[in-house]
Amino acid sequence: MNELSNDILSALKDIVGETGWQAPPDDLTRYTKDWRGIVPGVTSLVVKPANTDEVAAVLAHCNAHGIAVVPQGGHTGMCGAATPDAEGRQIVLSLERMRKIIEIDAAGSTMTVEAGVVLADIQQAAAEAGRLFPLSLGAQGSCQIGGNLSTNAGGVGVLRYGPARSLCLGLEVALADGRIWNGLKKLRKDNTGYDLKQLFIGAEGTLGVITRAVLKLFPPVRQSATAWVAIAGPQAALDLLNAAQVAFGERLTAFEIMPDIAIQPVLQVVPGTRHPLGRAEPWMALIELTGPTPGDDLAEALEAFFGEQLEAGLVSDGALARSEQDRADFWAIREHVAEGEQSYGGSTKHDTSVPVADIPAFIDEASKRVRAYMPEARITAFGHMGDGNIHYNVIRPEDLSFEEFYEHVPEINRIVHDCVAEFGGSMSAEHGLGQIKKAEHARYAPAHELEMQKALKALFDPNGILNPGKLF
Amino acid sequence: MNELSNDILSALKDIVGETGWQAPPDDLTRYTKDWRGIVPGVTSLVVKPANTDEVAAVLAHCNAHGIAVVPQGGHTGMCGAATPDAEGRQIVLSLERMRKIIEIDAAGSTMTVEAGVVLADIQQAAAEAGRLFPLSLGAQGSCQIGGNLSTNAGGVGVLRYGPARSLCLGLEVALADGRIWNGLKKLRKDNTGYDLKQLFIGAEGTLGVITRAVLKLFPPVRQSATAWVAIAGPQAALDLLNAAQVAFGERLTAFEIMPDIAIQPVLQVVPGTRHPLGRAEPWMALIELTGPTPGDDLAEALEAFFGEQLEAGLVSDGALARSEQDRADFWAIREHVAEGEQSYGGSTKHDTSVPVADIPAFIDEASKRVRAYMPEARITAFGHMGDGNIHYNVIRPEDLSFEEFYEHVPEINRIVHDCVAEFGGSMSAEHGLGQIKKAEHARYAPAHELEMQKALKALFDPNGILNPGKLF
Repeated sequence: MNELSNDILSALKDIVGETGWQAPPDDLTRYTKDWRGIVPGVTSLVVKPANTDEVAAVLAHCNAHGIAVVPQGGHTGMCGAATPDAEGRQIVLSLERMRKIIEIDAAGSTMTVEAGVVLADIQQAAAEAGRLFPLSLGAQGSCQIGGNLSTNAGGVGVLRYGPARSLCLGLEVALADGRIWNGLKKLRKDNTGYDLKQLFIGAEGTLGVITRAVLKLFPPVRQSATAWVAIAGPQAALDLLNAAQVAFGERLTAFEIMPDIAIQPVLQVVPGTRHPLGRAEPWMALIELTGPTPGDDLAEALEAFFGEQLEAGLVSDGALARSEQDRADFWAIREHVAEGEQSYGGSTKHDTSVPVADIPAFIDEASKRVRAYMPEARITAFGHMGDGNIHYNVIRPEDLSFEEFYEHVPEINRIVHDCVAEFGGSMSAEHGLGQIKKAEHARYAPAHELEMQKALKALFDPNGILNPGKLF
Repeated sequence: MNELSNDILSALKDIVGETGWQAPPDDLTRYTKDWRGIVPGVTSLVVKPANTDEVAAVLAHCNAHGIAVVPQGGHTGMCGAATPDAEGRQIVLSLERMRKIIEIDAAGSTMTVEAGVVLADIQQAAAEAGRLFPLSLGAQGSCQIGGNLSTNAGGVGVLRYGPARSLCLGLEVALADGRIWNGLKKLRKDNTGYDLKQLFIGAEGTLGVITRAVLKLFPPVRQSATAWVAIAGPQAALDLLNAAQVAFGERLTAFEIMPDIAIQPVLQVVPGTRHPLGRAEPWMALIELTGPTPGDDLAEALEAFFGEQLEAGLVSDGALARSEQDRADFWAIREHVAEGEQSYGGSTKHDTSVPVADIPAFIDEASKRVRAYMPEARITAFGHMGDGNIHYNVIRPEDLSFEEFYEHVPEINRIVHDCVAEFGGSMSAEHGLGQIKKAEHARYAPAHELEMQKALKALFDPNGILNPGKLF
């Protein structure tokens, strides 16, 4: 990639106009420091185009001059995919000014938006139109839909609604050379050649810049039933998941599991939390049903179901949310698990997925191997059981210092990821690769896969200007 | 493409072994005549590999010698995508011997199959394992899953379960040069680079040959409620669809609309059919709810819903299926609409999709234009309202001969497809392009789209051996 000459900087500033850029000495930290703060970068220019044409013009200019562009949404990703590198020669292209909701088609259950619209604003606009946009995740107050699509974001609604990929009907994309591809269709069925939008979804901004999207909306949720139950362990969780799926079909919206070690620190560090069962249990599940009509039938059905499961021995104790407050309290514990884990002081995290039915065996096997290597390691495995997506994290043993523990982290990661690979799993179920996981992924990718991926990259971005250093 | 020399033919026969090929003077009609019989072809060799390695070896040999290969499943497609051309230099690669169900993972709700397994066999195997594979279409007794995936098949379950693309978790693909890409994952979440399987799904065999797939299974259906109702027209159908979606969420599994002109000939030509309402109505809808638990609650809810809609004026009459026989009778009418249409003697068919909310305006506008061109044209517009997928067909006026009518067909098609394009629609919602629709599609494709598609084709199949003459 080339140096950013003053001529190039001026030309880029001209494209986006006076209010469309920032540069030093302005504080650019929020554009250059990744959310976890582990791969902070540097830039001489942040451009903030106001529309698709400006995005395209920026790309055309950068492509012609060999300037690297880092597309950026809310900058909340976990793997540094939207952060410039430390060299200072990459410009940041922020979509934050493109935050128009272009159309809500309630009768057709679609919404057309610019890439920079914040996820929470989309959820709210859908609700105001009597519809649901079901993508839901921790960063929803600041992440942007363009980033959600570029990383194929997951979150807590995947079991029922699928990830961001499933929620997208059409895209408009500015290509590396400045052309604009208009695939902004509102169609639920279209079989006319290769489905190009699928390439840009999950590509982390390396094949083009998503500028607009058509999203799928759903009927609103008017009833929910939520339970917190004690279970014997992951195998019981799997059996319970299957029983719940057969009993409730897609009314089953969430099925999260947590071990005691994950929730004890939450109860200690998060004010106002209390154990839903009143006492420690080795493993627990948080289960939620939702439906489109008001009423109590889901709560009644869920209560009856757990009555049966208590008798069958799959569940040993449980609490049903009796109020919206109860429900919020249950979810607050789940949502603070990551924060709670921090209070242990040092851990290494793995965003794994394996085939759903292999979760119990995977947790067993990985834990056996980690403990063989580090007998005092504390292991927490929690998350989206229904998606096969377990956050498998290893916490620093109390008798090791941070520094001692971090010396062992690469080996622990290797042990866990080897085990994931043996189970045919993924070492990045929902967080993507970005800068942080690309090397580790390259080790496990199937034969020819990286070759095909690199060939696609070269095809769509022959000069390599789009988010270089990410994915590969 | 090169000639098929005797050396090449011998080498290909050796790869698949004695029982793995057929050639003239055998009758090869079922491999060379497309289902509709409008683009019959010729071949000197049908190879039927027994496994992925043989598929790959056939491709490697053909790639090295510039021989065109036409991958073929059940050969039930509507657009000639699996039919060799008339020159006789293309070999057919039938997947029919690869019909093993490799694994059913009921607890993980996945099934792993070879590409040649017949769809109905997959449905049955899922049912025997206490699960549902929801892809369902007319040809299910003979179409194969590899073809279903290669054409992203639709059918009657799309409203709830999505098309074939939504039902696939992983693929194994033999590439043009004989390499094998193993993307046969059983994962519900995996964000590690570009989602390559999406490229092969819907590619009609032009980028690689799908050899195995991992499919998603669902909880079984244990209750259904089906209604046949009279409605004022497409706008009332749209309002009713929206009301049903809000009331029932994804319990709403089918929402099909039909005008009187579509069902009258069915009642005349299909033995045993009778009008569910006892008398002609201008427009009707067939609506079905399904759920995972046994009981009558869906029928009760549907009856109550239609009571409200009668009062609100969206529905003017209706019949609820009171038995499995009623339900079968209702569906038999819908399923014979295409056959009924044939009895009019001559029509031109359009597999359109438009944004769901635009269906009423699209039907109005297209019909106005068709009638301006041919005042006596008889128009039928029926199908998957919930998917925005209307089969918009124009039937020969009684006062024109076949020949006279067919002279006008290209102009009628142009009128309809221009109108589809103005509504941002697709001229092939579920049938694909194959040979038959490629030219028409090229006329409407967005800027740069064909260029990107052709570049992808050149990347994955540089020698152009995979299904040449299809898509482009």
